[in-house]
Amino acid sequence: MSDYKQTNEVRLLISCLDKPGIVSSVSTFLLEHQANIIQSDQYTTDPSGGMFFMRIEFDLYGQDQTFEQVRGAFEEIAQTFEMDWRMELASRQKKMAIFVSKEDHCLLELLWKWRAAELQVDIPLVISNHEDLRSEVEGYGIPFYHIPVTKATKAAAEQQAIDLIKKHQIDFIVLARYMQILSPTFVQAFPKQIINIHHSFLPAFIGANPYAKAFERGVKLIGATAHYVTDDLDEGPIIEQDVLRVNHRYTTEQLRVAGRQVERIALSRAVSWHNNDQIIVHGNKTVVF
Amino acid sequence: MSDYKQTNEVRLLISCLDKPGIVSSVSTFLLEHQANIIQSDQYTTDPSGGMFFMRIEFDLYGQDQTFEQVRGAFEEIAQTFEMDWRMELASRQKKMAIFVSKEDHCLLELLWKWRAAELQVDIPLVISNHEDLRSEVEGYGIPFYHIPVTKATKAAAEQQAIDLIKKHQIDFIVLARYMQILSPTFVQAFPKQIINIHHSFLPAFIGANPYAKAFERGVKLIGATAHYVTDDLDEGPIIEQDVLRVNHRYTTEQLRVAGRQVERIALSRAVSWHNNDQIIVHGNKTVVF
Amino acid sequence: MSDYKQTNEVRLLISCLDKPGIVSSVSTFLLEHQANIIQSDQYTTDPSGGMFFMRIEFDLYGQDQTFEQVRGAFEEIAQTFEMDWRMELASRQKKMAIFVSKEDHCLLELLWKWRAAELQVDIPLVISNHEDLRSEVEGYGIPFYHIPVTKATKAAAEQQAIDLIKKHQIDFIVLARYMQILSPTFVQAFPKQIINIHHSFLPAFIGANPYAKAFERGVKLIGATAHYVTDDLDEGPIIEQDVLRVNHRYTTEQLRVAGRQVERIALSRAVSWHNNDQIIVHGNKTVVF
Amino acid sequence: MSDYKQTNEVRLLISCLDKPGIVSSVSTFLLEHQANIIQSDQYTTDPSGGMFFMRIEFDLYGQDQTFEQVRGAFEEIAQTFEMDWRMELASRQKKMAIFVSKEDHCLLELLWKWRAAELQVDIPLVISNHEDLRSEVEGYGIPFYHIPVTKATKAAAEQQAIDLIKKHQIDFIVLARYMQILSPTFVQAFPKQIINIHHSFLPAFIGANPYAKAFERGVKLIGATAHYVTDDLDEGPIIEQDVLRVNHRYTTEQLRVAGRQVERIALSRAVSWHNNDQIIVHGNKTVVF
Repeated sequence: MSDYKQTNEVRLLISCLDKPGIVSSVSTFLLEHQANIIQSDQYTTDPSGGMFFMRIEFDLYGQDQTFEQVRGAFEEIAQTFEMDWRMELASRQKKMAIFVSKEDHCLLELLWKWRAAELQVDIPLVISNHEDLRSEVEGYGIPFYHIPVTKATKAAAEQQAIDLIKKHQIDFIVLARYMQILSPTFVQAFPKQIINIHHSFLPAFIGANPYAKAFERGVKLIGATAHYVTDDLDEGPIIEQDVLRVNHRYTTEQLRVAGRQVERIALSRAVSWHNNDQIIVHGNKTVVF
Repeated sequence: MSDYKQTNEVRLLISCLDKPGIVSSVSTFLLEHQANIIQSDQYTTDPSGGMFFMRIEFDLYGQDQTFEQVRGAFEEIAQTFEMDWRMELASRQKKMAIFVSKEDHCLLELLWKWRAAELQVDIPLVISNHEDLRSEVEGYGIPFYHIPVTKATKAAAEQQAIDLIKKHQIDFIVLARYMQILSPTFVQAFPKQIINIHHSFLPAFIGANPYAKAFERGVKLIGATAHYVTDDLDEGPIIEQDVLRVNHRYTTEQLRVAGRQVERIALSRAVSWHNNDQIIVHGNKTVVF
Repeated sequence: MSDYKQTNEVRLLISCLDKPGIVSSVSTFLLEHQANIIQSDQYTTDPSGGMFFMRIEFDLYGQDQTFEQVRGAFEEIAQTFEMDWRMELASRQKKMAIFVSKEDHCLLELLWKWRAAELQVDIPLVISNHEDLRSEVEGYGIPFYHIPVTKATKAAAEQQAIDLIKKHQIDFIVLARYMQILSPTFVQAFPKQIINIHHSFLPAFIGANPYAKAFERGVKLIGATAHYVTDDLDEGPIIEQDVLRVNHRYTTEQLRVAGRQVERIALSRAVSWHNNDQIIVHGNKTVVF
Repeated sequence: MSDYKQTNEVRLLISCLDKPGIVSSVSTFLLEHQANIIQSDQYTTDPSGGMFFMRIEFDLYGQDQTFEQVRGAFEEIAQTFEMDWRMELASRQKKMAIFVSKEDHCLLELLWKWRAAELQVDIPLVISNHEDLRSEVEGYGIPFYHIPVTKATKAAAEQQAIDLIKKHQIDFIVLARYMQILSPTFVQAFPKQIINIHHSFLPAFIGANPYAKAFERGVKLIGATAHYVTDDLDEGPIIEQDVLRVNHRYTTEQLRVAGRQVERIALSRAVSWHNNDQIIVHGNKTVVF
């Protein structure tokens, strides 16, 4: 990938009510602003009056304007069609905060992919309600914040986390097996910006001890679900799901090992898609382009 | 596969409490009865006093005794270890009844595999609460019985089905998208002998309209579960599960198409395993050897 | 799906060298011709001067022009950008010919999906070099043509097939386990219009007896590849590939059963994509939108 | 898992020509030596005179003899049936050496699973022909040996590695993307003890640059193969294979990322099976119990 691409690739995401002329207006705008479309993907829920979703990747090859100017100029079109939209410079690395508790598998999968440059993101901090993973995180040169949570201190602890996130200008948060339920206050402070990995194939086995339940039920597949966090626990928009095959010989512990494997895979895919601005959330569903 | 194998291959399935000496007794018995073990698989739930499960395939190569004699002689060992067991001659084709309603995909998958000799079974009859699939079934040379079911006639209809099943000495029943709930009377008449395909990845989306629910929920995988039927609707021992990947572009109808695909696959695998005596049911779980 | 959609949905596929202004021109054209874009997907191989590929689904909601008029009018844009393009009315059912030999699994998978309306296509004829599958095909109400092929008669046999295909105005041909190698003359008569299912995971195990080879090699997965036919045997553009897991217990015959299963799945997906105008062939590769 | 199990679980693996009485002799032997069979799996290639393969897990619950005594006593049965066999104490952790070059993904997957106790093995050393991964390995507290390899020094370098392996009494070697071809001398020194991960779905794309080849060929699946190393490069007995789905949008680099993902999965499964004594190699194939 050339420097050219690094500095000029832009991603535009649009949701709005479907109306005639949207693609034409957007693409003509891009042409007039010397933008070359690399890739685009568009989907309408219902051709006779549904929702319109679009993702465009384009290059700004012209010398006459900056990304900010183009973004500013787009506002007019956005207003015309009453769009919910955002325009992102691909070269601007997003800032991702990771929340963990004691289990390290999802954390380490993300840190690996980050170090291998498979996940091009900044990680200014990891927050945990336990000390356990400090040395691991600091070994990667990433600041580790221990914010213990008890019933009594929960509100203060969340505020402390919010302050850190705001101070570091975090773009999105990944709950990498963070075993605390976030309050509505916290969740609403970061809408569509918190990704969780659920230790199950939703909507099955919601709640505690899913592997013991799966063992009791004698399932033949173990799944995991990556989703955005909403107030409704375990019910936010699903981003990705995957499964692994198991059999009667698996103990509850071995189901847990299989679960860790599939959690890593599903979460890292979801994070990668979010980071590449490939996801539009609409209601309780995701459009993954 | 030679005629030799056809006529002499035997399958022995055993469940009992684990005790020292079971394998030794069984294998010594087989040696004494001139049986050559082809394949065996054994599993103990807990080495310090759990359940013992075993499946053995063996050939009777000796000329001095019949299958019936060997089976009769095994009774003594079975009593010693208080076994739940059965011994089946592989060359005896089982008799399978298929129950359908209006949807043909699972039925046709089974009929195909049967005609292609991928599923070596006899199919003396298909029973349906609708006329729709008569010509299809009769085209395969299989008798089709239309037994309509209404609330008022349900008990009589089930009795009619039971009579047919007994008359044809059916070994097991496959509910290939049979859209009627069987009564406890019916279910208890054929314990561990009724296989159902559930239009979902259990335990998710139990009940009606799973694809509409899946569409609303925005799932990324569509699953199906083949299981034995017990009184507890949708809760019998799981035999096989599988999934197919879907995305936001799938309409409810397209999810249904994906569902049909995965139902066919999961059901035909489960039927094949049952037919080959590969399954031991224990409590609400299956051991698939 | 409404009648409205049935009669007015159009698919436009475009390949050309990437240049500024293509999307803008196309979408403005569609707006001016009262077309509403339902779905679009676009991909550029290389942002600094590669190939441009696009697929658009749109509805013609206006009353003032026919599909033919819109298609005719598009010619001007196509010439400007030197496009390789086609515009298809979704409601026009394509005509598909199926070639078979003796094995029925791929044929029956297609016929099922056709009858279940999962595959919306016309099948004016099935051609075979053997009589074996006649009654099966005719049972579906489809004419069956037996065209035997020997070394001596091959050229004449192919000409007979070509005549039938032209007479029935066939849009595309599916080789559903047709065990004859087509001549360059035949292949060149239907460029990018012949889909084959290869009994293997290309590029592995090219040639005869793949399952015996797979058995000898002790593989753990069995695959199949659906591809367009070109002169270079087994080397045309890949459309779809899939695999099934196997193990050491599988005999060559059981590998063959697994192979049939995966061939059905891969072929029926490829046919469905082709039928829905989702595939653009470029060189020896496919873009599947 | 209790201490009891830790200290007394034994695994017995047997290959020999099939003959009457093997299972009976083995199980009677185990009964007489106060061993309780936990799990057993047996397979015969051909019921009329093929190869016999068996794996038994048993517990030595008696106090009267040691593992060594039981193993010694088994020799008599082994000689009777001319068995190729081994008996392993599950509690004895095997010693695994890892060979790497510059790529870390397979190495780190193994180290993670090792630290998470998902892979219960000792890792006395990592050997590399490059310095790149030293700090990573040493961070896990594992000695790292840099043994550079040039054409001129290859024989001496291999001897140095052999000396280290013998000195540390290594049980098996994992080539975790080790980019050197081992000499026949080296390979023959450790028969069936070297596991390699091949960057492809064998037998496809053998040799260099598989992802560039896969990109050129437009494949829809990316695979990897874990296998034992024999003199015949890329041709040893296959232990495990897996695939990931890709599409036309994947660049060669992204195919490489997918390849790394599937290599990690296939290799770690193969290593785990080998470590648990689940694999019997016969000729150029594996039996994985």
